[in-house]
Amino acid sequence: MPQGPFDPFDWIDEQAAVRAKAGLVRTLRPRSAESALLDLASNDYLGLTHHPEVTSAAAEAARRWGAGATGSRLVTGSTRLHAELERELADFCGFEAALVLSSGYAANLAALTALSGHGSLIVSDALNHASIVDGCRLSRATTSVVPHADPDAVRKTLDAHDGRALAVTDSVFSVDGDAAPLAELAAACRAYGAALLVDDAHGLGVLGDGGRGAPHAAGLAGADGVVATLTLSKSLGSQGGAVLGPARVIDHLVNTARTFIFDTGLAPAAAGAALASARLLRREPELAGRARTVAASLHGGLTDAGLSAVRPDAAVVSVLAPSPEAAVRWAADCRAAGLVVGCFRPPSVPDGISRLRLTARADLTDAQVAQAVATVVRTAPSAAF
Amino acid sequence: MPQGPFDPFDWIDEQAAVRAKAGLVRTLRPRSAESALLDLASNDYLGLTHHPEVTSAAAEAARRWGAGATGSRLVTGSTRLHAELERELADFCGFEAALVLSSGYAANLAALTALSGHGSLIVSDALNHASIVDGCRLSRATTSVVPHADPDAVRKTLDAHDGRALAVTDSVFSVDGDAAPLAELAAACRAYGAALLVDDAHGLGVLGDGGRGAPHAAGLAGADGVVATLTLSKSLGSQGGAVLGPARVIDHLVNTARTFIFDTGLAPAAAGAALASARLLRREPELAGRARTVAASLHGGLTDAGLSAVRPDAAVVSVLAPSPEAAVRWAADCRAAGLVVGCFRPPSVPDGISRLRLTARADLTDAQVAQAVATVVRTAPSAAF
Repeated sequence: MPQGPFDPFDWIDEQAAVRAKAGLVRTLRPRSAESALLDLASNDYLGLTHHPEVTSAAAEAARRWGAGATGSRLVTGSTRLHAELERELADFCGFEAALVLSSGYAANLAALTALSGHGSLIVSDALNHASIVDGCRLSRATTSVVPHADPDAVRKTLDAHDGRALAVTDSVFSVDGDAAPLAELAAACRAYGAALLVDDAHGLGVLGDGGRGAPHAAGLAGADGVVATLTLSKSLGSQGGAVLGPARVIDHLVNTARTFIFDTGLAPAAAGAALASARLLRREPELAGRARTVAASLHGGLTDAGLSAVRPDAAVVSVLAPSPEAAVRWAADCRAAGLVVGCFRPPSVPDGISRLRLTARADLTDAQVAQAVATVVRTAPSAAF
Repeated sequence: MPQGPFDPFDWIDEQAAVRAKAGLVRTLRPRSAESALLDLASNDYLGLTHHPEVTSAAAEAARRWGAGATGSRLVTGSTRLHAELERELADFCGFEAALVLSSGYAANLAALTALSGHGSLIVSDALNHASIVDGCRLSRATTSVVPHADPDAVRKTLDAHDGRALAVTDSVFSVDGDAAPLAELAAACRAYGAALLVDDAHGLGVLGDGGRGAPHAAGLAGADGVVATLTLSKSLGSQGGAVLGPARVIDHLVNTARTFIFDTGLAPAAAGAALASARLLRREPELAGRARTVAASLHGGLTDAGLSAVRPDAAVVSVLAPSPEAAVRWAADCRAAGLVVGCFRPPSVPDGISRLRLTARADLTDAQVAQAVATVVRTAPSAAF
């Protein structure tokens, strides 16, 4: 292969060297199917990913509808299975209509770009998920980032703007597991005629009556100016994302949202699995409460032992670590003891505080919860107490 | 639900009215599993979506690995199945390494944002796919849009820039099915030390030795400055996307690409199906040639009858229509006669020329090809000849 006078990727090696020196290299660690480790790092909050009803629905959908959707949703990629899933998600969460996309990331990009645009304002919480940040960047709107969970700041920002506006927030923030003040945010938006977009990725299946999600819990499901995004890959144990809202908003997305129009439809197996999970959750509404109970038990056990953990509003339990190095060692020690936990450290955490992140699952037994607490406490660095 | 003084979505109704008046309303048309229509609108170029080996692999992967990946690839979402698929895609297409993402859209956003950045230049073909356009917008680089398939324009643009640069092109353009001048583009990039990013969504499985794709056909697979993106949802009949390139580029993406890091891993069923398709294609390399032969037969039959169609470089056959209204009516008449074809019209086509879009499939019989040609010819508006 002929070589040019310059290497177009030299700068990549320089950046890699900087990362290596700072101890910030990320590497993939593919897991085996037969792992004996206890998993408290996934987002499989209801333990449905491996539920036989859900995996059978995935298998059956692949056999019946094919391994892929074959095209974009507006050409050949919409099956009756997609329509059935959209009806179920809308009904379950209490919205008029729903639109399924290939990921929650794509759903946030779709909602933010289609519901804003030149001259409009997006008011975004400082700790919103990366997909919201990217949606704001793609939107061509003016984005105003406001302090975390601060409805007064949202109100002031809306007050200073003349024209179309939308406020956007995670319902449950992924790192600390704290919930957004949705009712207050909605009141601020109503007062200024602004729309409210709620990313319920970590709320669906955990919060609200029978897991109907954070907007439902806040009395906002189906409200005129309220739109929600979901992932199908957390509580529903599958893959994909969705936007829920008034039918006219969903029609607008079908006609204008680029990450919907120009993407292949969600694979039938993923649609079938998510539909099976949603139906299972309707039948077993106690799963949502069980996930919250497990989270409370984890938090109680860890704080009783003297560790600092954020009181969980949903199924994420965040445990503070004394330093980035200590957090990495702590997570590695947990893994060596048979427990997989998440580890957040700078630059992933904007406040610079490193944490272990434990996720509750509805299918964990009390013995497993006790084992997890004991392992985290036993491996904790002394400075963590 | 309390109502605010303003309706935050009034403007949506106004836009919907404008679309309705212009006859540009898009609506979803969910298909049934038992459709008797002949499909020449999907991107299932090799007919593998419904291949029993592929659907069985999807089903088996869901049973073994679960219905979802359970988390982002860097936390719990990487299985050995993902690693196996990445190895296979890289080996098959002739690149050092590969990274699988949840969609081709996400793969383009990942590659463009991670390989450019502030102060760098992206040179982008005027007819590139929406996901490339969005990747450029997200990248914070300066984007220079150059005339379609014009290596001289790329050369001049690179010549005028001082600093890091990347040129990006579809390998096969979705609307007209024409191929990019990859060898000339690569020469221009080499001369200026720029990287070349090739979106091989419509080339993989159709072009190159045994379907190894357009970069392989152009002698660019594995070249130092060359990166390719793929979809797993077209020739491979599944869902997902991938980036192929030098190992250091893939490592860089693992560490920096937001649509990789902050997205749930691809569902095991989709990974398993794509892996089965890639292996099947290795075993039956004649599938790629058959897709091209079918495309040539479609083109020959239509032009012999006096219609205007673009000579296909891959598996997409584009037939010119006399007006947007005629194109819509033509496609509807085809459907009434049992044939599903794509229909492109403004504003989806930047040149304002409406078209029918027919896609060749390797599994179409000669009789089906003849039937498709006959239907398109019989339903053609007289002004199309």
